[in-house]
Formats: sequence, structure tokens, C-alpha cells
Amino acid sequence: MFLHVQRLLNEIVPDEPDPAAANALQEGLGGQFGEMRTMMQYLFQSFNFRGPDGKPFRDLLYGVGTEEIGHVELIATTIARLTDGSPRYQGSATDDMDTPGAGGATPLSAALTEGNIHHYLVGAQGALPVDAQGDPWTGKYVYDSGNLPLNLLYNLMLESTGRLQKCRLYEMTANKTARSTIAYLIVRDQAHENAYAKALEALGVNWNTLLPIPKTNAEKFPEVATLLEQGLQSKQYTFSLDQLSEAGKLYRGPSPSNDGTTLSTAQAPDGVPMDIAVERPEEFGPGLDPELLAMVQAVAEMEADEPAGQWGRVG
Amino acid sequence: MFLHVQRLLNEIVPDEPDPAAANALQEGLGGQFGEMRTMMQYLFQSFNFRGPDGKPFRDLLYGVGTEEIGHVELIATTIARLTDGSPRYQGSATDDMDTPGAGGATPLSAALTEGNIHHYLVGAQGALPVDAQGDPWTGKYVYDSGNLPLNLLYNLMLESTGRLQKCRLYEMTANKTARSTIAYLIVRDQAHENAYAKALEALGVNWNTLLPIPKTNAEKFPEVATLLEQGLQSKQYTFSLDQLSEAGKLYRGPSPSNDGTTLSTAQAPDGVPMDIAVERPEEFGPGLDPELLAMVQAVAEMEADEPAGQWGRVG
Amino acid sequence: MFLHVQRLLNEIVPDEPDPAAANALQEGLGGQFGEMRTMMQYLFQSFNFRGPDGKPFRDLLYGVGTEEIGHVELIATTIARLTDGSPRYQGSATDDMDTPGAGGATPLSAALTEGNIHHYLVGAQGALPVDAQGDPWTGKYVYDSGNLPLNLLYNLMLESTGRLQKCRLYEMTANKTARSTIAYLIVRDQAHENAYAKALEALGVNWNTLLPIPKTNAEKFPEVATLLEQGLQSKQYTFSLDQLSEAGKLYRGPSPSNDGTTLSTAQAPDGVPMDIAVERPEEFGPGLDPELLAMVQAVAEMEADEPAGQWGRVG
Amino acid sequence: MFLHVQRLLNEIVPDEPDPAAANALQEGLGGQFGEMRTMMQYLFQSFNFRGPDGKPFRDLLYGVGTEEIGHVELIATTIARLTDGSPRYQGSATDDMDTPGAGGATPLSAALTEGNIHHYLVGAQGALPVDAQGDPWTGKYVYDSGNLPLNLLYNLMLESTGRLQKCRLYEMTANKTARSTIAYLIVRDQAHENAYAKALEALGVNWNTLLPIPKTNAEKFPEVATLLEQGLQSKQYTFSLDQLSEAGKLYRGPSPSNDGTTLSTAQAPDGVPMDIAVERPEEFGPGLDPELLAMVQAVAEMEADEPAGQWGRVG
Amino acid sequence: MFLHVQRLLNEIVPDEPDPAAANALQEGLGGQFGEMRTMMQYLFQSFNFRGPDGKPFRDLLYGVGTEEIGHVELIATTIARLTDGSPRYQGSATDDMDTPGAGGATPLSAALTEGNIHHYLVGAQGALPVDAQGDPWTGKYVYDSGNLPLNLLYNLMLESTGRLQKCRLYEMTANKTARSTIAYLIVRDQAHENAYAKALEALGVNWNTLLPIPKTNAEKFPEVATLLEQGLQSKQYTFSLDQLSEAGKLYRGPSPSNDGTTLSTAQAPDGVPMDIAVERPEEFGPGLDPELLAMVQAVAEMEADEPAGQWGRVG
Amino acid sequence: MFLHVQRLLNEIVPDEPDPAAANALQEGLGGQFGEMRTMMQYLFQSFNFRGPDGKPFRDLLYGVGTEEIGHVELIATTIARLTDGSPRYQGSATDDMDTPGAGGATPLSAALTEGNIHHYLVGAQGALPVDAQGDPWTGKYVYDSGNLPLNLLYNLMLESTGRLQKCRLYEMTANKTARSTIAYLIVRDQAHENAYAKALEALGVNWNTLLPIPKTNAEKFPEVATLLEQGLQSKQYTFSLDQLSEAGKLYRGPSPSNDGTTLSTAQAPDGVPMDIAVERPEEFGPGLDPELLAMVQAVAEMEADEPAGQWGRVG
Repeated sequence: MFLHVQRLLNEIVPDEPDPAAANALQEGLGGQFGEMRTMMQYLFQSFNFRGPDGKPFRDLLYGVGTEEIGHVELIATTIARLTDGSPRYQGSATDDMDTPGAGGATPLSAALTEGNIHHYLVGAQGALPVDAQGDPWTGKYVYDSGNLPLNLLYNLMLESTGRLQKCRLYEMTANKTARSTIAYLIVRDQAHENAYAKALEALGVNWNTLLPIPKTNAEKFPEVATLLEQGLQSKQYTFSLDQLSEAGKLYRGPSPSNDGTTLSTAQAPDGVPMDIAVERPEEFGPGLDPELLAMVQAVAEMEADEPAGQWGRVG
Repeated sequence: MFLHVQRLLNEIVPDEPDPAAANALQEGLGGQFGEMRTMMQYLFQSFNFRGPDGKPFRDLLYGVGTEEIGHVELIATTIARLTDGSPRYQGSATDDMDTPGAGGATPLSAALTEGNIHHYLVGAQGALPVDAQGDPWTGKYVYDSGNLPLNLLYNLMLESTGRLQKCRLYEMTANKTARSTIAYLIVRDQAHENAYAKALEALGVNWNTLLPIPKTNAEKFPEVATLLEQGLQSKQYTFSLDQLSEAGKLYRGPSPSNDGTTLSTAQAPDGVPMDIAVERPEEFGPGLDPELLAMVQAVAEMEADEPAGQWGRVG
Repeated sequence: MFLHVQRLLNEIVPDEPDPAAANALQEGLGGQFGEMRTMMQYLFQSFNFRGPDGKPFRDLLYGVGTEEIGHVELIATTIARLTDGSPRYQGSATDDMDTPGAGGATPLSAALTEGNIHHYLVGAQGALPVDAQGDPWTGKYVYDSGNLPLNLLYNLMLESTGRLQKCRLYEMTANKTARSTIAYLIVRDQAHENAYAKALEALGVNWNTLLPIPKTNAEKFPEVATLLEQGLQSKQYTFSLDQLSEAGKLYRGPSPSNDGTTLSTAQAPDGVPMDIAVERPEEFGPGLDPELLAMVQAVAEMEADEPAGQWGRVG
Repeated sequence: MFLHVQRLLNEIVPDEPDPAAANALQEGLGGQFGEMRTMMQYLFQSFNFRGPDGKPFRDLLYGVGTEEIGHVELIATTIARLTDGSPRYQGSATDDMDTPGAGGATPLSAALTEGNIHHYLVGAQGALPVDAQGDPWTGKYVYDSGNLPLNLLYNLMLESTGRLQKCRLYEMTANKTARSTIAYLIVRDQAHENAYAKALEALGVNWNTLLPIPKTNAEKFPEVATLLEQGLQSKQYTFSLDQLSEAGKLYRGPSPSNDGTTLSTAQAPDGVPMDIAVERPEEFGPGLDPELLAMVQAVAEMEADEPAGQWGRVG
Repeated sequence: MFLHVQRLLNEIVPDEPDPAAANALQEGLGGQFGEMRTMMQYLFQSFNFRGPDGKPFRDLLYGVGTEEIGHVELIATTIARLTDGSPRYQGSATDDMDTPGAGGATPLSAALTEGNIHHYLVGAQGALPVDAQGDPWTGKYVYDSGNLPLNLLYNLMLESTGRLQKCRLYEMTANKTARSTIAYLIVRDQAHENAYAKALEALGVNWNTLLPIPKTNAEKFPEVATLLEQGLQSKQYTFSLDQLSEAGKLYRGPSPSNDGTTLSTAQAPDGVPMDIAVERPEEFGPGLDPELLAMVQAVAEMEADEPAGQWGRVG
Repeated sequence: MFLHVQRLLNEIVPDEPDPAAANALQEGLGGQFGEMRTMMQYLFQSFNFRGPDGKPFRDLLYGVGTEEIGHVELIATTIARLTDGSPRYQGSATDDMDTPGAGGATPLSAALTEGNIHHYLVGAQGALPVDAQGDPWTGKYVYDSGNLPLNLLYNLMLESTGRLQKCRLYEMTANKTARSTIAYLIVRDQAHENAYAKALEALGVNWNTLLPIPKTNAEKFPEVATLLEQGLQSKQYTFSLDQLSEAGKLYRGPSPSNDGTTLSTAQAPDGVPMDIAVERPEEFGPGLDPELLAMVQAVAEMEADEPAGQWGRVG
């Protein structure tokens, strides 16, 4: 069972909307090596795990898998921010609900030439479960052979490929909204590389100088360097609410990345508050006329019953 | 951000392995109207939500979406139980790691004729992200138009179709492992039908006698009837760890299902403990020889550092 | 623009339900060389046709394409008849709406082992737009190069492959319901082979003894032989309501199949009346409780206004 | 059985070719909520319909489904007009058959950067069965649960989503060719929304102020406003040649869209004449050299036999 | 450039036809971890290879990739042997061309219940480019990140997964035709595991006791044990006709599988002669009537000109 | 079994990088009518061939299929050349390994707007197994009906369609790298058209003036005209290393293209030498830091053992 906290794992820095960058980031969300895939792969490997002796391995998978749900939330929200109002940015905004305004304006004309037209036509300037080519995510991506060494080897390759693609994404755009999330994920992918490399070390492998993959000089990616200085690449969260996770038995000791750090675990990061996107009348999103809006506001102003929570109330 | 608790939402009743029932249940996991789809659809609708006035609607989506991750966990585990050891059940078990035993036995021969061969060939008797035809889950299933009335209408239809398919699944197998999860999901789908129907009532619709869909007499599905008597179809969990959810402003008052009950919310159910599946040497799962197994056991016997948790430690 | 007549192109002979035969026939409906594909291919070739000089060629395409919509109707209805009541046939029928009846019966258990489980789980014992492997029909099948000789060559190959597959289907089942439609389509596919072969003859090709493909001795397929005796393989319908079709300029003269017949055209066949399938309560199809059923019956008993029709009223 | 008339449902207004608009319109043809989908969904629901009491409901489905075939014809032709000659529009036309003309010209260079390259490379400047991302239409889109209330609910959502997307398309382009068809389909989608909403009213639902979805002010879409003034959103055609359709028992009375109109049925609209597209030698479409062209012309000049038609000759 | 030799890489042992085993073997041909995938992946990695210093690595990829084309040939032929005549095996054979014989026999009825119906309906009892679920092979399987360490890691995982699946296939069937090819591929997959593991050793990794994956006791798979005794798991062919391959610089020294053998290379194995399958009249394969057959035989009896070959003539 | 020679079938002329042309050429590699498809289709038809009398037909298929593997190699290499360094071409190159250089440069920004983003994000400026829309190649493309006349008819259509698309590609770009390969494939496709047309002539068909398809005036495609003058459209290679091929019994006599040439066969063309692409540090391809590079160079400098080859050593 899973619970939700209304906080994002990392802050999304504001910048101009940028449909092309949004489209590129879709690879990190719905691509073959994106966050939806890591999430599903680790969760299926957790659900199907065999061998009670291996509980620390399973709990490591559960922890990374649960973190990835939060990554999906983070990168989806980033994409939504990058598409939000992008036609306005293109100079064709309209101000009232019934676009196309008086006499047939074209507030969404930018959708024909920028990024993924589905961001404007199928969704209302939000994220989609597709990659940077517009191809939908598929369950065929999920790998779970049931063989522990093979799964670990695959997961190490998967995190390294994800990190490789995010390094390439960083080189494609200087948009700060995009880069704040890209840089964060580059570092977290390295933390996960470390996790699976360490688990394979527990089975005897010596990586020598092969890791991390890809090889990079952090000082050349400024936003990444800042996070590395905080040691974020060497810390793993368990996201284990009842703290029954034994992932800490694996994720400790010197980093396989040969950067001189020591691995350690924690329950969860603090995160940052979430907000709700504004209306986009040209998209009919949420598409309420004054009458329906009044009904929605009436609900929002109601007094909610405070349910008693077994996990306590925080924040 | 999401957290995990090592408990399942509902108990899985033990029974004989049954590959054909396992295959049928895949529709409820990875099918067009299964739990992976509801999970992803509600989460994307939450991430992309527009209109701060609509927070109770968004929080309702977040709550149901978070519950669905737990449904994915529950039904995947159920499928894994139904496939686990099924060749053994067919009378062709082997006892040691190096199957096919002495001289070329065929412990997995049942895979050629029962259920989905990939359960035995691609995975190691575990769940797959596919439907009952073996087709992989696809991001094309996810619907998020950005228009609130349309999304609610779609979600009502989606939950009703999910419930319809689970009623049909119930009629396909009497296996108790399968039915314990099917019956639970029939009732939870109705709870979610109520959620979206109620949200549309808040926008003015009067359903009269149309709901629930499909129409059923509960007393003819004994396992379902038991859960209905507990009122599980009229209770919605927020799964909101910081209890900021405002879903309770919508999910209250008389049930749209016309069964005389009153809707109410709670943070989370108690759930039941999880365990880890046994080894299946004929599948090379987890596939450790004595040397590697010793290394795994050494990890398991380590003393874990107890990380301090901001959400407290429970259980 | 298209109009509909409530008549089927050929009679469907009654026989026992047969889920396996129904599944095989799906290839003829939603397969790569099935009726949905021929329908869509010829219609797209008609819509995109280039060259006003070629109107007889375009009209030939429109006529065959319109016939194929009726073939889709015919084979879909045949599949629905083959699946209808098949669980009953398996000896597990129930009689009232709220299956699984008293205490958890399994009226749909046959779905786990016979044919395509989606016939019972996703649909309510009806046809699906998929092939005999359960793969959905895809727009990738449609071929329209815009080059007339290539399109004709492809269409000749397509009809021949369709006819080949239907000959193989005939050899797979002796069910009379299935065979009545298979035999009819074998003969109509030959009529369409003749159409495209003749159009290529108009461009100079001499087929000599190559056609028809595949080579068969009609007397060994009794149901086919009966239709051949009626000359149905050498007649083409224009399905042209305003009779502006010029297909008859091409479809005439000696048959390219070398069977001694002469090709000719007509507007449309007589067809046979259609009926509406009975209810299947175990499928919740149509899923009306007494209260909803009463409302439906009230509609059915209304007096309809008789709309004036520009095409006249027939039948 | 179906028949064809050589007339389009609505006039396509001439304007400049526009490959980007053509690509966008593909969503309305081959997209998840486009005309191929509505056509196939309603036809399958008609073929598989259960319950003789529900004939008016089935006939409503048949009528809308038959209209959708004509919509496919209309939007495909519109796309073909928008791509036709578009390279010429880009200033790189050639005049004779054997492009690339003398010495290696590039008359199709615009295809590398505008719209969907397959419009020029796979087809010869014609419509394709794909969406605005180039993804092929798939049978997975078709929904037929066999449950009448669910099917109606889905269809209402489907038409509303189709209309939402067409409103967004309207805002993306001011090309008159594109808009003439977009505006027509916006209005017809509303007519179909009314059809399914009315059918659900017959089952007891009261929509209050929820419809139409999306909410729009017609006066801001000039081409739409013109059609609404004609009442086209409140009229439904049966397209029933033998006039056995009982759809008129449902489609009558006050409109569920709350626009003060009254619903009514008719057999079919008048439509407008069709023509055949010119040759495009740079595409090798139809690709005839003088010798082959002479053969084609010889066929066109033949005297056709006039087949006797059972449905009479009109137009 | 590639050349072909009319010899198979390994002998296919005759046994009874077995459609279910044939279907299972499709996973090894067209599955996500089958021979079509390894072939394409290594060839694309060869074509796109970067870094002239890495020629031995590229040549290793070219050599294994070229071997995989021969594996595709071997396993496709094996599947064709397993399906060939299987209806006959089921007791429903017919003897002359015009099946279904006199009066409507069903020689292909077994296709409805055994293996993949497409083996009999789409093909003529031959191999298909699909997996054991009937899903077509897709280019999405091919992995080429352009990063050498990542590609090697992936390839090691890929070969190990292929070998894991073939071990499971071995446990599913005792058919000798199937097992002769399965056993051969188990051993060759290990040779390829060794290749990629060795290449990673050249980059510093120490595998210790992790390999091979999966861990097996050869003596329990008799057919495999025979091949291991010949050292076939430690020999790699370059398939380099001009012998410019430098793969031998990598593939040498002690085996990473820790079995005490030493790796070595050779140009190509001897192979065994190929033959041509017999006709299947019930499949219309090749579907020649006496007249067409006479024309084919006339060609076969012609005297061929002997082309001069630059690579010499052998065999 | 297959062998490889380190030579390309035709020379690739150097020119500027051009991502848009690279993307267009993907249709010729991984498209529905591209080289991967012809390769796989002819190889499967060879593996599954029925009828020992038809050996010349099978050998023709084997020869063309083997040539197509070399076409895949040629066009993939061409695409890699067209993408290689294209960001540099855009003026944003960086010189050392750790891009994005000092302080966050964007050397890959062109990937957001030019061609297929996956060329830069998923691969490292290399070819992909996809078409010009980015859709992956699929096994569904492969046609093998098992019926010889049908297979030949399909293959003739396939080669003609491939040639049609390449003629259109020629008209889309004047890049010399692209055109050198396009022109070569136009001519080879005609050679293969001749092969299948000739095989159908052996079965009695008289093509009269229909071929070649499409009709073109060679003098207007200068690069094509040069190759036609060499007679390359009328020569077929057997690629048969042991020279057991009997394809020459079919491929001889006057050309069905009516160009006055006579068909003839040879073993293999000379080809041209291959090289290895340079490193692209901004892509982390091959991604070696100095330490790893030193290890790779150490391997390259080793003395290789010279394996004795049964096919002799050439070149």
C-alpha cells in the first residue's frame, strides 16, 4: 500500500514556457529509459521477488521504485510547466473563455510547428505518457526475469542509460525549468546506479574504474555540480513509512562510483510544496462556464470533516 | 511524493495454483480497463489539473490514484500466487536447483498449454504488465482531456467498465485466491463509481436509477455480499499522509448507487502483512548457486542502521 | 455519402455456437488480409484517387470498397452468432440476470480455455476488431501509394491472399454457421480478384494461366461449388445508389480466371433480413434491470414520425 | 448492406494548400477520437447489439455509424485538398512527368520540414489512416462493452471529446479549407452528443446544465455560428435507405444542450458533388506514361451498359 | 557486404511434428530476447560504432552479429520442421492438392487448438517473425546507446537472458527436433556471454564468481553436456570472409565463466547441408497446379551458366 | 550460414551533415517498404520455401535476401554519416569530452528542431531501426503466404514500391551523401523488380509495357542515369559463397523492363572499403575517459592470432 504527500521531491525553477524542451523531456517521463519505466520495472520486480533470504535486495527495489513514482510526478509537473501558456509566449494569447475570441482567432497556432501537437490537441497543455517521438509508453519495456543477478545487471544498465539520456537532454536546452529537473534526475540516477552496482558487489563483482556510466566531469554541468556537492548521489531514501525496509544493509560503505563518498540511507527528503495550475480557457481546461464554476466554488468552500489518520497528521 | 507500507490492501486467500485464472486476472492488472490504467489515468489527471478552485476534485483524483497503486500491488501479487508452483501442481515438480533434473526432465511442460506461456518463459511465475491476451499495457490508454466534466464522465465510465469486467471474471473461476481479490476490487470499483458520480452530481447531474453500472444482485456473489455488508462500497480513503486532501468535501452524503448508504472518507485501511515468495529453481529464480546464496545471506544477517524518519515509525 | 439497408449480403446458416471457429474467423474480419482492411484500403484509394481520366478505375474501387463494409457487417454478425451462447453450449448456462446465480456459479468458465477470452471478458459475446491472434486491426495495413498500376497490383495480391486464408479457414472447421460465410467470401474474393486482374489487363498485362490464385478444384468445397454455379464469382455490384458508377466499363468481357464465364455488373444483391441478438444476462448485456427495461420498452412502443426520404422507401 | 452516393456531406471551401493544417486534421480522421473511430465503434455496437426491445437504440447507432463513414470520406478528402500541390505552393513545382526535371531538382523538398513526411513519401499527397502524430489508427480504440448504459455513456464522452478536439483545431489554423470541415464536424458532433445524451435521458438521467461539453459561445466561431443558426446541431439523419430505422423514437423533443431547440430526424442531407483530384507527376500519381494513359482513356471513352437498379436512379 | 553458404550451423534432429513446441520456439526467434533481436542489435552497434581505436570491439560485434543471422536461419528452419505436416500427425492428412478433399474435409482442424493458428492460416506451416505470444518482432528491441561500456553491459545481459529463456524452453519439451536446436543455442549463448564479459574485463571489471548466468549443472541437460565437452562454449567464429576481423584480440585467455577453459577464435564452423521442404497441398503451398508445375520444372532442368566467383567455389 | 566482408556495396559520397535528410532516409532503412523489410521477407520466404522442384526460385530469394543485408549496412552507414557531427554543422560544437563544456553549453540544441530527436538522444548520431516518422520496424511487415505465385506478386509490388519511395526521396534532397545511396538503391530495386517479374514470366505472365513501375525518364536523375549506363539494373548477384545457387536459371534473357538489356548473374560486386566513425564526446560515444581509453588501445595494439580459414583469405 502507498500513501501520498502533497510535496514535490525537488523544486522546479520558473522560466519561460518552451514546447520544444517539453517535448524533449517526455523521453525522461514516458521513454524506454524514462521514469515510468523505472517505476514499473522496480515495482514489478518487488511484487514478484523470490527468495526470503533476499529481503534487503527486495526492499532496495521497493524503495527505488517508490521514489520513481515521485520522479514521474516531478517530471510530469515540469513538462506541464513548460507547455503551460506556451501559445501565450508565442504572442497569440487570448483573455477570455470563449476563444478563439471575437471572429475566429488562432490562439493555438504554435501547436502546428512546436514540439508535440498532442500537448495542445489531446491534452490541455499538460504531460502525456509518451516519449520524445510521441510514442506511448508500453508494458513491453518492463524487464523482470526473476533471476536476481540478471535483474540487478539490467537495472544498473537502465539507470546508466537514463543518466546518459538526461546528460544529452541537458546539452539540448538551457531553459531553467527544464534543467532544474534534468540536473536533479542526473544525480538521482547516479544514486540508483550506485544502488545496483553495490548490490552486485555484494555478489562478488569488482567494478574497478568502470563506473559511473557515462563518465562526466561534474564541474562542467553547473546545476549538477551543486547537487553533487551536497552528496545527493550517495544517499538513498527508503520511502518506507513503517520503516521495515532493510535496504540500508546494502546501500552503505564506499561508493562504487569511485568518488570517495560513503553511501547512506534516510527515510525521505523534505520536498517542496505543490501548487495547482491556472485555467487555460483556449484549451477548455477545466472548461467551466460561470454556472458550473459557481458549483465548483461552492464545494471548495465547504467545511471538510477531518478524518482521523492512523499515520498521524504532519505538515 | 509517495511512501510505501509493507502491507497489502486486502487478504489473498490461499488455494491451488491456477495458470488459466492467473491469465484471466491479467486483464484486471494490465488490461485496457485494469488497475495500471486507472492508476496512471488518475495520477496524470492530478499532475495536469487546472483550476485552483477545484482542489477537492484534484485531491479526489490523487486519492483514488494512490489507492490504485496499491491495487496494482494487490492484483500483481495475486497473479504471482496463482502461477507460483503451477507446474508442481501439474505433477511435474523437481526439487533441486539444476532442473531439468537428471537426464532431461520437463518440469515446465504445462506452460505450453495453460494460460500465458510468458508467465513461465519470460518471467519466473510472476505477474506481467499485460492483459489477458498477452498484450502489453500502453500509455495510449490514459485519458486526460484537461476538461473537468469530460474527465469525470470518462472516469465514471472507466470504473464501471472495470467493475463489469471483474463481475465477468468472477463468473469464470471459482478459485478462492482469484476470487478474494476479484470480489474486493468489485466493491472498490463501486466506491470509485460513487466518487465520480458524486463529483458529477456536484456539477448538477441527477443520475436517478441509472447507477450502479452494471446492475447486480449482491446476494448472488457471496464474497462480494460480505464486503458490501461492511459498507466498503461507500467509503473512500484519501491515502493522504499529510492529510491535506480535501476529497472529503465531495465524497459525502447519500450514495449515488441508491443503496441507502452514506458516503464517508478515511485516511487508509489497516491492510494485511506481505510475505516474500519462495524460490523456484526450475525457473532459475532467483537463480543463486550455493556460493552466491551465501553472499546474499551474509547481507541479510547484517545489522542495519536505523534511519531517523520524519514521518515516524509505525508497525 | 453512404446509406444503410437493414439486410445482410448473404444468409448465415444456424448451427451450434463454436468459440474456436469464431476466433479463427476474426482473421477474416480484423486480420491483415481481412474485410476491415480491404474496406479501408479501397475507400482510401477512392478518396485519394488522382487523374480524372481514370474515373472507371476509381468507381471500381468505390464499389468494391462499399461492398466490403457489408462484408464487415456480415462476418462480424457471423462471429457474434458463433460466440452467442457458447458458454451455454458448454453446459454452464444460467437463466436469470444476476449471474453467477445463487452462490457463486461460473457460467463463463469456458472463456478460460476456448477461443479468445476477450469475446467474453471485454465484449459480451460479440465480434471484435482484431485478428485470430487477438491483435487489433491497424491503419498500417492500408496501402495507397497513389500510383495506379501499383495499387492494382497490390489489390490483386490482397484479394488473392484473402481468398487463400479463407480456403484455409474452410479446412479448419465444419461448423455450418462459419462455413456459410466463409464460402460466400471465397467466391466474392474471386470476383474481386477478377476486378483487379481485369483492370490490369486494361493496362496491357496478359495473365495467361496464372489466375485464379490460389488454384482450387471447386467441386471439393461443396458450399463454394454451389455459389460458383450461380456465377457469383463473375458478377460485381456497384453499390452505387445514384448509379453514377462507371465500373461497368472495366468489369466486363471474359473472366481472367479462365473459367469460361463473362464478367458483368449489377447495382446490389437482394440480401436477407437482419435480426437482433437476444440478451445475455451473464454478460450484463444489455444489462438492464426491470426498471430500466421498462423505460426502454416505453421508447420502443412509441409511434415514430415517418421522415420523408429523398431516396424513396423500399422493402 | 451499404450503398454509396457520389456526393460529399458538406462543401469543402477552396484555399491555399497547407501541409501543417493537413497534419493537424489527421487527428480528426485517424486519431483516438476521430471519425474512423466513431464509425467503427458505432458499427460494431450495432452489429453486436443485444435485446430486441432496444431496436430504436440500435437504429440510432446504425444511423450515426453510417453518417460517420461519410465523415471519414469528407475529412479524408479535405486532407487530400490541403496537401495537394503543397510543394508547388512552396515554390518548387515542376511541370512534366519525369521529375525531378532536368538535372536533379527537388520538387518535394518541403516534405522534410512541413507536416507529416509520409503525406509525400508513402502516399501521393493524400490522406492517411493515422493521427496528427503519425500513429496509425488501431482497433484497440473501439469500445463495445455490450452493456447499453455503459456504451451510451462512452459514446457521449467520445462525441464530446471529438468536439473538444475540433474546437482546438479551429484555434490552430485559419485556413478556409480546413475550417469549412472543422466547423461542420463541430456542429455534427454536437448533434451526436445530443443523440447519446437523449438516449440516456430515456434511461432516467437528468443532465441539468452540464451539456454541451465543451461549453462554448458560438458567436465567437463564425463558421460554426452560421451552421447553428440552421439548426444542424439538432437534426439527425437516419441514412436508412429502406427507412426501417426507428431512431426517430429517441431523437425528438427538447435538446439536452439546453439551447431551446427541438430534436428531429431526416433520411439524408442533399450533399454536394464530388470531383477527382488532378495528377501529380512528381509523386508518380497516378504514374502513367503516354502509352498507359492512352489505354486508360480508351476505357473511359467506352459506352457503359446501364445496369438496372433495384433502388432506382437518382441525381 | 554479406555472403551466404547453403549449410546450416548445426544439425536439426528429426522427430514428430509438434505445433506447441514450435510456438514456444518462436520466442527464441522473434521474441524480445531472441535471435532476430541479437542479430539486429549487434549489426546496428557495428554500423554505428564510434572510435577507430576500438576496432577489435567492433569486429567482435560484427562477428557475433553475422553468426546470429545464421542462428535466425537455424531456428526458423527448426520451427518450420516442427510445424510441417503437423495436421497429418493429428490424423487428418489429405493426399492431393485440392483439399479439403471430397466433400468438405477439415485437414487443418488442429490449427484451432494447437500452438499459433497463424502458423497454418497466415503462413503455410513455416516460421513467423513473432514471439511465443504471437507478438511481432519490433525495432524497439534494438539497443544502441553509442556508449561502449553500456552497450557491452547490455549485450552481456541480453545473451544471459536469451540463455535463461532457452534453458526454460528445454524444460518445456522433450521433442528432439526442438531440443537439438535449443541445446546448441544454450551453448552458443554462453560463448557470447563470454565474449561480452571478456570485453568488459578488458575495461577492468572482475566478475569473480557471478558468471555464467544462469547458473546450471551441465550434466543435467544431456544434449548440452555433449556440446560443452566439445568446448563449443569457449570458441568464437569471426565469420569474416576477408579475415580482417580483429575479434581474436579480445576473445582469448581464460573463460570468464570460470569453467577452466581457454577462449579461442576460428573463421567458421563446417555446418551441415540444407534441404527444401516438401509441398503441403492443404496449405496451397507452393500452390501450383499441374500446368504451373510443369513450367517450374522446365526452369529447374535448364543448364545454368556458371558465374565466375571472386571468392572461389567451395563445396 | 552467412559470412561478412569488410566492404560496402557502393561508395558513400561525402557532403555536409543533414539531419532532415537522415530522417527521410530512415524510411528506406526501417520503413514498411525499406531494406530491413525486404531483407527479412526474402529470408523468411527462403527458410520456409516449399517444393524441391523450385530450387531456382528459392535460390533467387536467398540471393536477393542476402544482398538486402548489405543494403541495410549501406543505408544505415549513410544515415550515420548524415547525422554525424550535425550539431557541429549547426555551429555549436564542443571539443572535449565533458560537454556541455564550461558552464552549461548546449551543443545538441539542434536536436530539438531537426529530423528525429532520437538520433541524438537515444543513439549517438547513428542509424535507428525506424521509419521517417520514427515508428519502429515490425515483424508484421513480413509477408510469406507459402504460395509461390502470391509471394512473387507481392515481391514485385514490394520492390516497385521501394523504388517509388526512393524516387520521391531523391526529389526531397540534393545532399550528395544521401543521393549517392538513393540512386544506387533505385537501380538495385529495378534489378530486383526484374528478378520477380522474370520469375512470374516463367509462370506464364506477359507484362507487355507495364514495367518498370514507376515509369521514369532516367536522364532526369543524373546519378541514376550513370548507373543505368553501367547496366546495373540488369545484373543480379547470387552472393552464394559455395556457388550452389541456381538463380541464374531464372535471371537471364531479355529484361522485363523493356529497356533492351539482357539479364545476367554474378557472384558478388567488388564493393568499397569501410571505415570507423570518429568519437563524439558530446554524445558520450564511445564515452571512454583517458583511463578506459588506454585499456582499449592496449587491446588494439595486441598481436592477433591468425585463424586458419576454410574459405581462404582474400583482400
